[in-house]
Amino acid sequence: MESVFQNETVREILTRYRRIWAIGHAQSVLGWDMEVNMPKEGILERSVAQGELSVLSQEFLLKPEFVELVEKAKSIEGLNEYERGVVRVLDRSIRISRSFPPEFLREMSEVTSQATKAWEEAKKSDDFSKFEPWLDRIIDLAKRAADYLGYEDEPYDALLDMFEEGLTTREVERMFSKLEKELKPLLERIMEEGKVPQSHPLEKERYEREWMEKVNLWILQKFGYPLGIRARLDVSAHPFTTEFGIRDVRITTRYEGYDFRRTILSTVHEFGHALYELQQDERFMFSPIAGGVSLGIHESQSRFWENIVGRSREFAELIHPVLGENLPFMADYTPEDVYLYFNMVRPDFIRTESDVVTYNFHILLRFKLERMMLNEGVKAKDLPELWNDEMENLLGIRPKSYVEGILQDIHWAHGTVGYFPTYSIGTLLAAQFYYHMKRDLNVEEHIANADFGPIKAWLREKVHRYGSISPPKELLKKSIGEELNPDYFIRWVKERYL
Amino acid sequence: MESVFQNETVREILTRYRRIWAIGHAQSVLGWDMEVNMPKEGILERSVAQGELSVLSQEFLLKPEFVELVEKAKSIEGLNEYERGVVRVLDRSIRISRSFPPEFLREMSEVTSQATKAWEEAKKSDDFSKFEPWLDRIIDLAKRAADYLGYEDEPYDALLDMFEEGLTTREVERMFSKLEKELKPLLERIMEEGKVPQSHPLEKERYEREWMEKVNLWILQKFGYPLGIRARLDVSAHPFTTEFGIRDVRITTRYEGYDFRRTILSTVHEFGHALYELQQDERFMFSPIAGGVSLGIHESQSRFWENIVGRSREFAELIHPVLGENLPFMADYTPEDVYLYFNMVRPDFIRTESDVVTYNFHILLRFKLERMMLNEGVKAKDLPELWNDEMENLLGIRPKSYVEGILQDIHWAHGTVGYFPTYSIGTLLAAQFYYHMKRDLNVEEHIANADFGPIKAWLREKVHRYGSISPPKELLKKSIGEELNPDYFIRWVKERYL
Repeated sequence: MESVFQNETVREILTRYRRIWAIGHAQSVLGWDMEVNMPKEGILERSVAQGELSVLSQEFLLKPEFVELVEKAKSIEGLNEYERGVVRVLDRSIRISRSFPPEFLREMSEVTSQATKAWEEAKKSDDFSKFEPWLDRIIDLAKRAADYLGYEDEPYDALLDMFEEGLTTREVERMFSKLEKELKPLLERIMEEGKVPQSHPLEKERYEREWMEKVNLWILQKFGYPLGIRARLDVSAHPFTTEFGIRDVRITTRYEGYDFRRTILSTVHEFGHALYELQQDERFMFSPIAGGVSLGIHESQSRFWENIVGRSREFAELIHPVLGENLPFMADYTPEDVYLYFNMVRPDFIRTESDVVTYNFHILLRFKLERMMLNEGVKAKDLPELWNDEMENLLGIRPKSYVEGILQDIHWAHGTVGYFPTYSIGTLLAAQFYYHMKRDLNVEEHIANADFGPIKAWLREKVHRYGSISPPKELLKKSIGEELNPDYFIRWVKERYL
Repeated sequence: MESVFQNETVREILTRYRRIWAIGHAQSVLGWDMEVNMPKEGILERSVAQGELSVLSQEFLLKPEFVELVEKAKSIEGLNEYERGVVRVLDRSIRISRSFPPEFLREMSEVTSQATKAWEEAKKSDDFSKFEPWLDRIIDLAKRAADYLGYEDEPYDALLDMFEEGLTTREVERMFSKLEKELKPLLERIMEEGKVPQSHPLEKERYEREWMEKVNLWILQKFGYPLGIRARLDVSAHPFTTEFGIRDVRITTRYEGYDFRRTILSTVHEFGHALYELQQDERFMFSPIAGGVSLGIHESQSRFWENIVGRSREFAELIHPVLGENLPFMADYTPEDVYLYFNMVRPDFIRTESDVVTYNFHILLRFKLERMMLNEGVKAKDLPELWNDEMENLLGIRPKSYVEGILQDIHWAHGTVGYFPTYSIGTLLAAQFYYHMKRDLNVEEHIANADFGPIKAWLREKVHRYGSISPPKELLKKSIGEELNPDYFIRWVKERYL
């Protein structure tokens, strides 16, 4: 396999980058092990190790010789697209890393670690006052982070860009104003017309973990997930995907013992993330362009498998027999039941419990609040009321507790502000990719036949093979020749739910 | 908890050492994951990551500022024993690391990685010629390693010291000449008298993995192994123990499906290693004196639990009921059967299948051959014959294949020469600790009552709490007031088997 990296300077960059890659590999393994295996009192030593590795990685990234090489490479003419990708990704990482003074990073790390504990306490006792002072400090940190990073229009731009390269507040606002305008009446019609139900008896059926393990493994096997060869499926409190490289990608799922849809759709969702990493070009191995380019694009892949494949009628029919074999109560339910159960639509207080249609309102709410925090001097004490008002405005329901409202997500406690919009971007893009795929493939027929090869090949060709060569917007142009367009998602909702 | 490290220079050393510690932590997690979880094609990226981390760790250890601090600390008067321990351990690591030129380490790494593949091939086809040229290169590397390290009397001293600080060839020779002289006639008498059998029908009984999992968990629970809190039990091809710190220690076992003694004694053996790490003084956390001091002392802990506890009559009685609950065939066997089955004595070609009495002859054989490789210009081609002759001399049996003889161990393929004697040292010390413990405790009664607390407390007080403060010989003086003495083991064999 000939290297795609021919330029001498880029090759030297990559040689030096290898230790940063190795530290990243180790950090991923340590993180995965912490969620999946670690005995609980291992946390102290693990946290110290992770902290040291972060500092180390940062030091190597910002070493003057390394930064100079990247600077030098930026001005070289005639680099190929892979080499330019390497330079772009590293230049961006260096820029972001250099923005923050060490004392700011230390403060961030201390505040978020204490804020996370406070949030856990607050959530447990449904007492917002325990979290409130920490949230104020986090709002302050987010503002300062935006200032350090710099921005043109407004501070929120700086934070968005950290999670989705090149994304602006104006674009997110445009996307959401369209969504809000179109989805609100749509949601009302969906609820009225009742083509899909608001609840289903299958929600209440209880299962043994071993039953659903078999079903999940069956599904992953049909998807061609290379279990034991290049991949794993494990269990953790919150499902996630991690990659240690191109040849070792791991997903987790969860088993609550009821509402089996959750474990299936989690598994299918994480499979979508995993596939993106597994289908990377192996020539990018050990380089910074190996791996998914952004959170939004990554989420488009997981949502594609969750919403387009996992919630399709064909998928419900495909898995009905294996459900029947493993879940005794399935004798009473048809494939149509499975389909309806997977496609219920009803306003819910909790984002992670939400259906495909109402989900975006949850993100919109958080986007509005985060922007207010940064722009309008909103204080933590104002937020619960603002949250509840906005929830009532968007979904017509008003939380009766903090846990149903502002205390539900861990993101802010982690200091993560500006991340939520990528969830919606992924959801919209999944539908957009779907309609493009339909021009080339009979998607439903392939799902019905458990013939996922062509779908995977299409995603590889259109998205995965680019790795992180180009920033998300350019990737979309190369891939489908257009930018993010919410119309596809709205069309999909109409076709599916009306 | 007040720090035991008060000296400013030592504190600065420890601050800088923390990143070396963190890299070590990561290397251990990566290594454990590779044996226990890694999908098979993850090997390429994992090896590269491990290689980079090794180089990094070495670089930090040999950084001039770090080395200077350690040098400075060496001449400080009035350091306490903990501080002196830190300086000694780091000074030794630096000295060993600096002995080898980078090109030698690279050659070692390349040769051993190819030699390991060649050994696997050779073993699979019972064809020594595939391994022979690699073994010659490994003999050459071992000689050069000894030269780089330096020695007083003979090259083998240098290699021994790497694995067991301060151990000399002369001491090993003295130990083995005593063992050979005493154990040979003893073995004959044991076989003649037949107080323990040479085989037992329980060897052939087959089991389901779940049955023995339950038994192993029951035993570990009786031992007070903090499963899920500070410890784990997993499965791997070759059982091992690893520690990621004092609060996260993991052992593995194996399930062959027959001869259940193996999985129990493996688990009990690894528990002994784990306990040594779990009972470290928490004040040593993140420092180089946390953790077992040497391979020989470590093996004494695992052998104590395996031989003294696991092979005792009281232990056989203790576990007989739980065996009965989980193994249907146990209805036909008494506690006495379990005891005899765990204590069979018979010459075997394979070291890892050997009983307590013949085990040391296997080590002696390897010691003789390794010393010849270094001193007498013996070539790889001569070794199979030398092996077989010595096996016949020691145990009266002659291997009929390479697999039964020289190809059985992986150690040489890994470039590990000088390691084997630590196995015997551990075996002998286990008995020595036992007789010392008997002065303070009624060991058998505690085992019979599953009251392991006092035994664990004794080991903590006499061995574990010292961490790596003192080199092994000094540790023994502090602990039991005498040096390694094979007489205890010989006495134990007589009392047990005659």
